[in-house]
Amino acid sequence: MSEELKTTVVHQAETTWQEGMHFISIVNGHSVRLDAASQFGGYDQGPRPKELMLSALTGCTGMDVVSLLNKMRVPFSGFSIEVKANLTQEHPKYYDRVHLIYRISASENNRDKIEKAINLSQEKYCGVSFMFKKFAEVSYELVITT
Amino acid sequence: MSEELKTTVVHQAETTWQEGMHFISIVNGHSVRLDAASQFGGYDQGPRPKELMLSALTGCTGMDVVSLLNKMRVPFSGFSIEVKANLTQEHPKYYDRVHLIYRISASENNRDKIEKAINLSQEKYCGVSFMFKKFAEVSYELVITT
Repeated sequence: MSEELKTTVVHQAETTWQEGMHFISIVNGHSVRLDAASQFGGYDQGPRPKELMLSALTGCTGMDVVSLLNKMRVPFSGFSIEVKANLTQEHPKYYDRVHLIYRISASENNRDKIEKAINLSQEKYCGVSFMFKKFAEVSYELVITT
Repeated sequence: MSEELKTTVVHQAETTWQEGMHFISIVNGHSVRLDAASQFGGYDQGPRPKELMLSALTGCTGMDVVSLLNKMRVPFSGFSIEVKANLTQEHPKYYDRVHLIYRISASENNRDKIEKAINLSQEKYCGVSFMFKKFAEVSYELVITT
């Protein structure tokens, strides 16, 4: 087996239709429900697939930031990420502009370190952000709350 | 208000850190858990963020295909989509090749129509597929089961 083949990592999911527009996706051994809104034949039994990409984006960069703040020994007591994405108007509709707000409960004295953690995630580590930047302008800001 | 502003559609999510690498994302009013594997400081309380993009991809094109088959009056009794994605090796790690297998329980007589529905989703309607094609080679195949 070649070196290339030995080191290949393949991620997978399997998604099964239930009824209407309702699907259940099995990913990492967990079930995720997906459904359309009623005006598109769904019964809202789960989030819309496209919006789920926004959850993926916030989770990816969020885990990076937690990991980096822990390494930097920056204490924080709360952390959330809000994301807003502009949807284009013609099919296929996609996100062309995405803005993230990182809200972290921490000391203002650590602002530089927290900004560094966010920048490292956005510029180096977060694969989901990297993928988003191939189709969208991604901007972000930090709000420190105490 | 300008015409442009009136027609803008913004999608959003908010994702809040729980503990460790565990986040809960609120999207379309639903909660989605995200967590890392144990070797990355997580407790596997939900799927990984990057893999969740694969669920988004399968759900998006799956809903298109259901909608199109219904419009074409093509009956089917089962439908699942398997996706495998090759992860690159250097940070930021992303998906560079993605393969989808559409498995549909339907009559072989309707193969042409089913292929048409899948192609319409992949080439015209599915915004998530469109976004994936900006960073990955996306291939797909149809398996009809009876």
